[in-house]
Amino acid sequence: MAVKEVAVGIDIGGTNTVFGLVERDGKILADDSIKTTHYDEIEVFIAALYEKIMVTSHKLGNGVKIIGYGVGAPMGNINKGTIEHAADLQFKGVIPFADIFNRHTDLPVIVTNDANAAAVGEMIYGGARGMKNFVVITLGTGLGSGFVIDGKLVYGHDGFAGEIGHTAIRPGPSNRDCGCGRKGCLETYVSATGLKRSLLKIMADSLQPSELRKYSFEELDSKMIHDAALKGDYIAKRAFTHTGRMLGFKLADVVAHTNPEAIFLFGGLALAKDLIFEPAKEYMEENLLSIYKGKVKLLASELSTQNAAVLGASSLVWSSREPN
Amino acid sequence: MAVKEVAVGIDIGGTNTVFGLVERDGKILADDSIKTTHYDEIEVFIAALYEKIMVTSHKLGNGVKIIGYGVGAPMGNINKGTIEHAADLQFKGVIPFADIFNRHTDLPVIVTNDANAAAVGEMIYGGARGMKNFVVITLGTGLGSGFVIDGKLVYGHDGFAGEIGHTAIRPGPSNRDCGCGRKGCLETYVSATGLKRSLLKIMADSLQPSELRKYSFEELDSKMIHDAALKGDYIAKRAFTHTGRMLGFKLADVVAHTNPEAIFLFGGLALAKDLIFEPAKEYMEENLLSIYKGKVKLLASELSTQNAAVLGASSLVWSSREPN
Repeated sequence: MAVKEVAVGIDIGGTNTVFGLVERDGKILADDSIKTTHYDEIEVFIAALYEKIMVTSHKLGNGVKIIGYGVGAPMGNINKGTIEHAADLQFKGVIPFADIFNRHTDLPVIVTNDANAAAVGEMIYGGARGMKNFVVITLGTGLGSGFVIDGKLVYGHDGFAGEIGHTAIRPGPSNRDCGCGRKGCLETYVSATGLKRSLLKIMADSLQPSELRKYSFEELDSKMIHDAALKGDYIAKRAFTHTGRMLGFKLADVVAHTNPEAIFLFGGLALAKDLIFEPAKEYMEENLLSIYKGKVKLLASELSTQNAAVLGASSLVWSSREPN
Repeated sequence: MAVKEVAVGIDIGGTNTVFGLVERDGKILADDSIKTTHYDEIEVFIAALYEKIMVTSHKLGNGVKIIGYGVGAPMGNINKGTIEHAADLQFKGVIPFADIFNRHTDLPVIVTNDANAAAVGEMIYGGARGMKNFVVITLGTGLGSGFVIDGKLVYGHDGFAGEIGHTAIRPGPSNRDCGCGRKGCLETYVSATGLKRSLLKIMADSLQPSELRKYSFEELDSKMIHDAALKGDYIAKRAFTHTGRMLGFKLADVVAHTNPEAIFLFGGLALAKDLIFEPAKEYMEENLLSIYKGKVKLLASELSTQNAAVLGASSLVWSSREPN
């Protein structure tokens, strides 16, 4: 039997860390996950992650050979293999992720921004196949972004391009604290947590009844708000509208900067479909210069929530083996 | 005597249209200009421009041979050779610039955004030599921008990338009308006109004395405000501070999107040096995520105001002759 080569794609999220053993053609032979939030120490987290990958690999038997590890993480830096000051992770400061991971293996470990990994996944295996200029926005605990220009991922001078989640909604001190230490960043509005925060503010201002009034901030999650909105809950619907508008407002900036063919929304909030897409599209168009109006597609990712970043991360390994 | 080949670089501005006859190495053999504002009809404007170029060329004698025309214009589109809905020009709608110009000549006519042309000029002949990732912001009657990523100008899917002048300062209706038909665009704050508008608002709010109180809006220009600020005029200084802050606020978005090594400021307002650079730098840094802080250089263009776009536009012709 021929040995199947696989790259391990790892997607580190604020809540869960998902990985997959992926063949060159994007076929995921096995996948699993661990809870990111269960670990306070990065060394322990990486040891647990590596262990789980080994267990998963061994279940596939001797026919599979790992050739490297691709990692998508918030604030992942491809130049240095680090995760730096990630607002949505409990691991603070500059984490030499690749170096620590390489205590377990001599194989290549390639780290990048989780949204960059999702963008590569979308380009190779998803809705962006054939596109040269597009942007992927990942909506999860936070908001990430990956820019593809002329068919290539944009890393920028320091390897940190694509952080629209940490652009501000307006000048001057804004009222929402961001995990990054500043105030008023886009992700304080547009993310699963941002949606909850908007819900609470609307609940405070409005006297409309809502079934969500009986839940605490900690009990609430975006799925509950989604379900309530589908049932016609006024406050839940308004929270989605506000979230979508703030997103659309900043997407107009994305268009004016790089004029993409399409913008893909990916992750939990994107599953709310029209609830988020309609206000986002409306506000994006309203804020676009005439030369851009009606031209930029706002699309849902064609990859499942787990898969895009895992596939993209794994493809980093494959592409690093190929000559330029 | 060997014939010298030259490309004509043309920089179409809201007020003046400047051109130069440029050798491959960036040496400008001759240059001149016409007043853009003197012409209501695009055909007449182009005829006058072409005539002036011919006169300038003939003065150089038989030793010079024009090989093509590179044009930098607001809303210039490289794919179509058009100028589309330029807010700062009196020529409205979609202008088939290259087609009209080609009524006078069979030589290639290449049109792009004026700020894109300036960015190419900066890359080949100016302060961005050796840089792979940078942005040029042109501050004139309006505000233009050109993005270079991985050593290449970003055109985007429709050829219109780089219009940060028409991103909005804040969500919702903002109070300043923009020439583009919308409200609250960055260039309504950050441009020669934006500076005047801010000056008037500060003059209205403040009771501080100012020598500028005796001039009408039409009489005022950015040079007068600059001179007054240098003499310590409180209102003029505050107008510059406000202008710089609005610029810095949006430059932080530029950094979060594409993580450039440097941002170059070019054009009239950039000549005000610290008056604009200090508040711009301060507000940019204040709005940057920690991973970017202190890393992105905010620099003055190393090319003279006339030259950058002319050199950049001319280089479009040279580069179109070279195989990829």
